[in-house]
Amino acid sequence: MGNYHHKRIRHKNRKVNKVGERPGTISIPADALKPRIVVYSYNQTDLQVSEGTDMRTITEQLKRCTDHTHWIRVNGIGDAQLMEDIGTFLGINQLVLEDIVNTHQRPKFDEYDNYAFGTSRIIYLNDENELINCQFSGIIKENLLMSFEESYDDYFSAVITRIKAGKGLIRVGGSGYLFYALTDTILDNYFVVLSDLGDQVEETEERVYKSPSKSIMFDAQQLKRTFITIRRACWPERDKINDMIRSESPLINNDTKIYLRDAYDHCIQAMEIVESYKEVTGSVIDLYLSMVSNRMNEIMKVLTIISVIFIPLTFVAGIYGMNFSRQDTHGRIIPDNMPELYVQHGYVYTIIAMLFIALVQLLVFWRKGWFNKL
Amino acid sequence: MGNYHHKRIRHKNRKVNKVGERPGTISIPADALKPRIVVYSYNQTDLQVSEGTDMRTITEQLKRCTDHTHWIRVNGIGDAQLMEDIGTFLGINQLVLEDIVNTHQRPKFDEYDNYAFGTSRIIYLNDENELINCQFSGIIKENLLMSFEESYDDYFSAVITRIKAGKGLIRVGGSGYLFYALTDTILDNYFVVLSDLGDQVEETEERVYKSPSKSIMFDAQQLKRTFITIRRACWPERDKINDMIRSESPLINNDTKIYLRDAYDHCIQAMEIVESYKEVTGSVIDLYLSMVSNRMNEIMKVLTIISVIFIPLTFVAGIYGMNFSRQDTHGRIIPDNMPELYVQHGYVYTIIAMLFIALVQLLVFWRKGWFNKL
Amino acid sequence: MGNYHHKRIRHKNRKVNKVGERPGTISIPADALKPRIVVYSYNQTDLQVSEGTDMRTITEQLKRCTDHTHWIRVNGIGDAQLMEDIGTFLGINQLVLEDIVNTHQRPKFDEYDNYAFGTSRIIYLNDENELINCQFSGIIKENLLMSFEESYDDYFSAVITRIKAGKGLIRVGGSGYLFYALTDTILDNYFVVLSDLGDQVEETEERVYKSPSKSIMFDAQQLKRTFITIRRACWPERDKINDMIRSESPLINNDTKIYLRDAYDHCIQAMEIVESYKEVTGSVIDLYLSMVSNRMNEIMKVLTIISVIFIPLTFVAGIYGMNFSRQDTHGRIIPDNMPELYVQHGYVYTIIAMLFIALVQLLVFWRKGWFNKL
Amino acid sequence: MGNYHHKRIRHKNRKVNKVGERPGTISIPADALKPRIVVYSYNQTDLQVSEGTDMRTITEQLKRCTDHTHWIRVNGIGDAQLMEDIGTFLGINQLVLEDIVNTHQRPKFDEYDNYAFGTSRIIYLNDENELINCQFSGIIKENLLMSFEESYDDYFSAVITRIKAGKGLIRVGGSGYLFYALTDTILDNYFVVLSDLGDQVEETEERVYKSPSKSIMFDAQQLKRTFITIRRACWPERDKINDMIRSESPLINNDTKIYLRDAYDHCIQAMEIVESYKEVTGSVIDLYLSMVSNRMNEIMKVLTIISVIFIPLTFVAGIYGMNFSRQDTHGRIIPDNMPELYVQHGYVYTIIAMLFIALVQLLVFWRKGWFNKL
Amino acid sequence: MGNYHHKRIRHKNRKVNKVGERPGTISIPADALKPRIVVYSYNQTDLQVSEGTDMRTITEQLKRCTDHTHWIRVNGIGDAQLMEDIGTFLGINQLVLEDIVNTHQRPKFDEYDNYAFGTSRIIYLNDENELINCQFSGIIKENLLMSFEESYDDYFSAVITRIKAGKGLIRVGGSGYLFYALTDTILDNYFVVLSDLGDQVEETEERVYKSPSKSIMFDAQQLKRTFITIRRACWPERDKINDMIRSESPLINNDTKIYLRDAYDHCIQAMEIVESYKEVTGSVIDLYLSMVSNRMNEIMKVLTIISVIFIPLTFVAGIYGMNFSRQDTHGRIIPDNMPELYVQHGYVYTIIAMLFIALVQLLVFWRKGWFNKL
Repeated sequence: MGNYHHKRIRHKNRKVNKVGERPGTISIPADALKPRIVVYSYNQTDLQVSEGTDMRTITEQLKRCTDHTHWIRVNGIGDAQLMEDIGTFLGINQLVLEDIVNTHQRPKFDEYDNYAFGTSRIIYLNDENELINCQFSGIIKENLLMSFEESYDDYFSAVITRIKAGKGLIRVGGSGYLFYALTDTILDNYFVVLSDLGDQVEETEERVYKSPSKSIMFDAQQLKRTFITIRRACWPERDKINDMIRSESPLINNDTKIYLRDAYDHCIQAMEIVESYKEVTGSVIDLYLSMVSNRMNEIMKVLTIISVIFIPLTFVAGIYGMNFSRQDTHGRIIPDNMPELYVQHGYVYTIIAMLFIALVQLLVFWRKGWFNKL
Repeated sequence: MGNYHHKRIRHKNRKVNKVGERPGTISIPADALKPRIVVYSYNQTDLQVSEGTDMRTITEQLKRCTDHTHWIRVNGIGDAQLMEDIGTFLGINQLVLEDIVNTHQRPKFDEYDNYAFGTSRIIYLNDENELINCQFSGIIKENLLMSFEESYDDYFSAVITRIKAGKGLIRVGGSGYLFYALTDTILDNYFVVLSDLGDQVEETEERVYKSPSKSIMFDAQQLKRTFITIRRACWPERDKINDMIRSESPLINNDTKIYLRDAYDHCIQAMEIVESYKEVTGSVIDLYLSMVSNRMNEIMKVLTIISVIFIPLTFVAGIYGMNFSRQDTHGRIIPDNMPELYVQHGYVYTIIAMLFIALVQLLVFWRKGWFNKL
Repeated sequence: MGNYHHKRIRHKNRKVNKVGERPGTISIPADALKPRIVVYSYNQTDLQVSEGTDMRTITEQLKRCTDHTHWIRVNGIGDAQLMEDIGTFLGINQLVLEDIVNTHQRPKFDEYDNYAFGTSRIIYLNDENELINCQFSGIIKENLLMSFEESYDDYFSAVITRIKAGKGLIRVGGSGYLFYALTDTILDNYFVVLSDLGDQVEETEERVYKSPSKSIMFDAQQLKRTFITIRRACWPERDKINDMIRSESPLINNDTKIYLRDAYDHCIQAMEIVESYKEVTGSVIDLYLSMVSNRMNEIMKVLTIISVIFIPLTFVAGIYGMNFSRQDTHGRIIPDNMPELYVQHGYVYTIIAMLFIALVQLLVFWRKGWFNKL
Repeated sequence: MGNYHHKRIRHKNRKVNKVGERPGTISIPADALKPRIVVYSYNQTDLQVSEGTDMRTITEQLKRCTDHTHWIRVNGIGDAQLMEDIGTFLGINQLVLEDIVNTHQRPKFDEYDNYAFGTSRIIYLNDENELINCQFSGIIKENLLMSFEESYDDYFSAVITRIKAGKGLIRVGGSGYLFYALTDTILDNYFVVLSDLGDQVEETEERVYKSPSKSIMFDAQQLKRTFITIRRACWPERDKINDMIRSESPLINNDTKIYLRDAYDHCIQAMEIVESYKEVTGSVIDLYLSMVSNRMNEIMKVLTIISVIFIPLTFVAGIYGMNFSRQDTHGRIIPDNMPELYVQHGYVYTIIAMLFIALVQLLVFWRKGWFNKL
Repeated sequence: MGNYHHKRIRHKNRKVNKVGERPGTISIPADALKPRIVVYSYNQTDLQVSEGTDMRTITEQLKRCTDHTHWIRVNGIGDAQLMEDIGTFLGINQLVLEDIVNTHQRPKFDEYDNYAFGTSRIIYLNDENELINCQFSGIIKENLLMSFEESYDDYFSAVITRIKAGKGLIRVGGSGYLFYALTDTILDNYFVVLSDLGDQVEETEERVYKSPSKSIMFDAQQLKRTFITIRRACWPERDKINDMIRSESPLINNDTKIYLRDAYDHCIQAMEIVESYKEVTGSVIDLYLSMVSNRMNEIMKVLTIISVIFIPLTFVAGIYGMNFSRQDTHGRIIPDNMPELYVQHGYVYTIIAMLFIALVQLLVFWRKGWFNKL
């Protein structure tokens, strides 16, 4: 993934807080996509799939398939009327509907009288290699799971393949197991993203060793932000899965709970990876700063040594460049003002004196250990 | 919100501690506003509103409307006598009264025999775009909520609109639900403030990339202070809402508790946003400091290279600027003291030697990688 | 409080550890003050006060006033015999006596069969504006509170005034309420100290903006030490008050517990203030260090620019200061060794060349953005 | 261990996440080793050992030895078919099988109906002195322990020796005790690694004192990474052992639990060592950075003092090197333009003045304390 | 304690990990001292003391004194046979024996059927003023305490004095109280060490203010290491004492528990002191680094100001030192190439111009505030 460019995790829609609004008010984000509905109805032997964009797609399929488990998958939430219709149809609380369309929920699992509601953060790399952080939510009823996603991206294709293949628990596990399977797919994607980020952390670390440049600070900063975001998704996800495990609702049966414990372990593992990557990133920054400082020290040392050696020599040259002189009336110099200047071989003696000064200085610096690598 | 200026969160009134004072003593802050009272009395069909500044406004409305829920809203707490009258009228503990007028309480929810008392921190941007941090407190009795705010700002207009519109639970939920609705409005405003602060954090980060200047340190410092303040409001607010959810008081009914769970989620979300903004702000500061240090390194490097190249050359020029000379009696120079000076083309040879020295130095520095961007 | 000087919190007496000593051994600190005893005996209608320095002061007053609550206040603990007599008189454990005279206890509340024992840290500004951290301890029995303070400072004058005034719960609340009232006074003083420290934090912050100097580091260091000390007093104080609230001893009645809950809130508030002041102080230090570094950068920049501009120019001047020359036998210069020197207007051309070099350099630096404020 | 080279802890096989895959799918890592099976069957008196690479090795031995405890040790997991066969043979959950072959599990202990499953991280120095971090997992059934390791390294030779010697609890403790013995051996190896790392930390610290060089930063960075890895293994290991202690399964008997408490203590001890080594490593880095900065300061000081002393002197020499002069028509100098130049002994006076300037400067710097060691 | 030299806390014997060894194996450290045994047998009226180096010393005394409490004190653990004999004699678990001779245990308190086992870390200054960290362990049985220490140092002389004096609880408190008394003596020594370290922290802080030198970094580093070591001893010690308080074993009676609560408080106090000393030490380091940086800034400032003032002046001197000249055929200068040189008083004008340049520069720097203390 060498051509992967750091992007901020993009929240699909920014929350618009309307202060003091009646709780349960449905305000669709302006750039929400129009809903696309796919209904998968399956039992151990049969699988029916319908697609559409309105309530009829749902109601007709449900009427037709009476002993099936239904997965009503809604991609895009940009239709207030449809949302309200769905709310009425499923008989769910207004607050739940609000949570579905207000796509900044923390992962959670809430149980109600005859249904349960869960949300997760979907974090994935889309086809343009951007990190997307959007919301998944699902309403679990007996024999029915209604899921909502923000984008059209084909996130759950592996689950659909398993449903079509008809093997494993997926066709007999009921809506609770299906909800687990989707959650597990989301968690799997965390590992894909983390693996990619891990590569970037290692690459950044190697760049520190090989060719440190100031872009490292920017990249490390981006990585830290991304880790903060994933951590914010993972922590409540863990609590959510734990709530599901301890749930006494018949919607989550004991077989599913065994699988949920597995998902719980994965979630903790993801968190641990995030934490240790974060720590390593911090160390990389420290290392880079130390290398920059070291290089500056080396440069300073060279300047100092060269300057300090030449400064006294240049001064001596300046001394003998002075024009003190006395001339007799014939314009001849009387050699009594700077007598060194007129001594035979005075110049050679001076050069020798300069060399001596330079050598003494080099000796002093060598004794002080300035020539050692710092 | 480009024209938003950082302001310290202003505590409206500084607490004046009178050491050892009898607990429950009411000492009104010097700059407290005079109370304005509005009484909203409503049931499912009727809504009565009275305004005033004294007890009569309250007592008369309560006498007149017997099967209503009353919201007695008091803006401004600067009238000790009125406060004591209210205390007597509602039959509340002196400590509660003290908490109302001593406007530095942490958010809390205390239950008493036949009433409950709750406080929150109101944090909002006023019309002058200043961040205000003031106190909201409310006494909940059966069919009655008495709320106290420090300022006249029209903070709860959306709730009043909902009361007037008469739709939703607000007209039938009782005083507990009304208290929830006000708390929820306060929480909504946290998100408004946080959204504004989030924009500032991002803007600060962009400035680091585009035009780093030392004002970034000041701004980041201000942002951190603001985050500390909001966190100090959020943490106990969460505990308070939790206390309300677990309360067994009949004042908070089960329907309200469902909504409170929603508010609880919002509160945790606000806290998480504060924490991650704080972390990002810290990273921005680190990034800025690293950029400043990098720029200084670059400047140092230029100085070093230019100095180190010219220092030996200037020394050579100094050597040949020395006046060592010997003249014969006719004032003619005898070319035996600095013979180089009198050699034909000696000057040209010297210039070539200087160029050679400079080139060797450039080569050494290039090999050391000093011309690479750090 | 402009004339307030930072002082280390002074522990009145340093603990002298005698290793392996029998627990419960009373070793009075060398500089402990001689005890002064005041006994306040009061009931709802009557108040008797006696002063003295020996046991008789206590025993006589107790004999005389049989239906009173007694507050035996001992200031100064420097009398081993008296301490032992008091221990015998009240029938208390040796360990408790040891805790009273070993004045480095953490705040705690221990219950025994028929009495309770509590300690607090008194932290206050004395008349010389020094921060004093000394110990308060109290033995609570039915109708009797015996309190011990290390200094003579009139710390509880407000409580005494309330006792004398005879209003409020103080005259009827019993020894438990009196102990609460003293604890509350101690907490109130924390806020006085914190308010003073808060002013200092703000003043320090302003100095960073207005006139940063290295004394800021020292002051911030002192402030941090003071915050550490206060935190060390606050944390166990909170636990102590909580222990009192959950106590089932008849010495702490339910009315008092309502007030203790209030004190508990104050204690948490104090802790929160300490924490946020500490965080702000840390930020102030960071800001100061960044400003110092910025200023140094600015100075370096000026040095670099001026040096780098003049270094090549001085070199050129050095070149034409060289004495390469050839003279004919008449002492006339043959202009073939440094021909530029003898060209007409050569000097002017050189000056123009120097100006050109300087301009090119200025241009390069301007393009590199070195003239921008960092 | 002087010739020990820092190596990253090498994860044997990188996890390949297949998103949305059916949980329990067995996907063998590409570079997994082919399994080698050794079956140890022992009771108090007898010990049978068979080796092989297929199921028959296991089944035949189990048929032959009916009243033995069996340790089926599998080194290498690179055979999907064998894994599935083992799963079927032991009747274990697919999720467990997946955990065995997906070798990035956190240490854990899960109980199922008639078996238990536990994993640990094996961290050890291999023969090439590389730090290896690979997975150990074991299925505990009555009288049977099936263990899986990733490498062929002879990790448990000491346990095998004990089995062969037949002394101690090992021959009578059952499969639970055997599992404990293996876990304990793994923990013992943590201490070997930590002892080695401790030597490196001390060696690094000594290098800071004796010959600081920039490799210290790299080494400290590597050490910190290693500590992070070991901590990630230790924390869940502690929880795992605790789960085993609190287990009510008959597989872990009470005698074993006494030993497990011992292992629990060891685990905490390892964690504490890691934490304090990490803290010491951080201090070493701080110390190194401070020493580098100190040395740079010393170099700067020398430059400054020498520069500042010679700069004015060189300027004076420059002054008297100027060619201001006036000549009469005979070419004789009229000494009125720079009269100092023609004064008798002017040169000596100048040298004396220069010495005086230098001495004054030295005095000022000495008074400022610049000659003190910083 | 001015002549106290920092020493690393010396672990008496390094643990030798034998991987996979049978738990409970006794491997005596190579440099362990030969055991010296003293048996104190006492009841309220009688005290018998025997010394020796073998089991007989113990068995004979125990036979002789049947209604006594026995304290068998073993100094030095370097005799495997004796250790095994003691194990057999007391009937203790092999794991306990291993913990006694493997002298790197964390403090703990384990209860077994008819005995209890506890360990502590002894941290003290020995006669050579070195900090020693060695192990104390004790086996508590009814009427018998067997204690093991690593060194011969007379650590518990105060307890022995109390036993000999025969006053206080020590003669009647049983083996549990004796164990408490030894633990308490160990805790008292923590305070002695901490008091000494506190003096060093303060002394280090004062040195930062008075004469900062780079040895401060080393000393602070050593102090931090020492604090880490003491904290590692204190934390589990607290848990150990808590375990003893909550123990239901008859070995720890209720009277002893009151004293243990006191020891518990001391332990927390020690921890708090360690934490605040650590924090203060960190602040001292920060302060020192800031002072070093400040001093460097001051030096840089002087360099800059002097350089920047003289650089242009020296350039001007260089200009007029150039040899541009034109001579007529008589060797007379034609004053048209550098006419300034031949102007009357040209030299004076130049000096005045230089002074003017210097003054302008000084003015600019003064306006920029460069002469202010930073």
